[in-house]
Amino acid sequence: MKKSLGAKTLIYPLPVWVVGTYDKERKPNVATIAWGGICCSDPPCVAISLRKATYSYGNIVERKAFTVNVPSEKYVREADYFGTVSGRNVDKFTESGLTSVKSDIVDAPYVKEFPVILECKLIRTIEIGLHTEFIGEIMDVKADEALMEKGVLDIEKLKPVIFAPDTASYYGVGKNIGKAFSIGKKK
Amino acid sequence: MKKSLGAKTLIYPLPVWVVGTYDKERKPNVATIAWGGICCSDPPCVAISLRKATYSYGNIVERKAFTVNVPSEKYVREADYFGTVSGRNVDKFTESGLTSVKSDIVDAPYVKEFPVILECKLIRTIEIGLHTEFIGEIMDVKADEALMEKGVLDIEKLKPVIFAPDTASYYGVGKNIGKAFSIGKKK
Repeated sequence: MKKSLGAKTLIYPLPVWVVGTYDKERKPNVATIAWGGICCSDPPCVAISLRKATYSYGNIVERKAFTVNVPSEKYVREADYFGTVSGRNVDKFTESGLTSVKSDIVDAPYVKEFPVILECKLIRTIEIGLHTEFIGEIMDVKADEALMEKGVLDIEKLKPVIFAPDTASYYGVGKNIGKAFSIGKKK
Repeated sequence: MKKSLGAKTLIYPLPVWVVGTYDKERKPNVATIAWGGICCSDPPCVAISLRKATYSYGNIVERKAFTVNVPSEKYVREADYFGTVSGRNVDKFTESGLTSVKSDIVDAPYVKEFPVILECKLIRTIEIGLHTEFIGEIMDVKADEALMEKGVLDIEKLKPVIFAPDTASYYGVGKNIGKAFSIGKKK
């Protein structure tokens, strides 16, 4: 039997992604989000949503660029930290000990230690309500070579983090349960 | 060392969600997507992206509503099937044996057997490129009572599916690796 839970943002799985931006003085900032997703294949685009009150919001409006950095499980503490303090008050790179790398392609920094990063150029800004959705065209994806198997990214090596909203918990990726566009055939 | 992979939609984790819609004759349809995410907390909204060529695209334009249904691992075959055929040619509910339930709140059907479903009213349509992003206001979330622990949704019982794009594989959720807004404190 289904129970009504009301008008809430409860859906599974949600990602744990870290948005990299520069402020006016080129101080790099990072902020963790769970509100985001791929929104177009061609051009390849990713959407991220931020509140106007965040430091990253102003940075993206100013720089028209951001990176999306995928933390691996081993950086779950840093990713959580990046979501709990504001770049207005602290330098999160300095505090966390992680390394900011200037993108050659867009006006934003990425996190050197994270296994996969997307460099994005802002192409659309959608005001929705409490959150503003920024659509970024993915100009390049960079990944640690050690995580690839014959040039293909392996999620089992990458170990991204999953956010479970109702319990506010982080999870790892579990077992492979099938091949896409394949296991459902001939139902 | 990071390797450039080009401008691609490679990011982790991605969801496996099934979009429910009615066509003009009120035939229910379901289509599986990985392009989507929460995009606003207030009003609570979810964004899903579809190609214009899909049957669901026309249904959403017509009905201004959709549901987002979260399959559990046990329905990974059905979810995969829903992403490989078009509702233009087949009745996916009949073919899969799953049950369409008419939402009382929005003009769209949901999948009875799936553990969590979101009933959404279309509030924005964003043309991006190959894909169009539909932003739906979440009017209600319904979940199977058996998956709740003291009124809270438990991802370990829910068992949503994760999509790994580069290898086109499905994964389950793994181990709990920490409490959000907490484990990163006092870094």
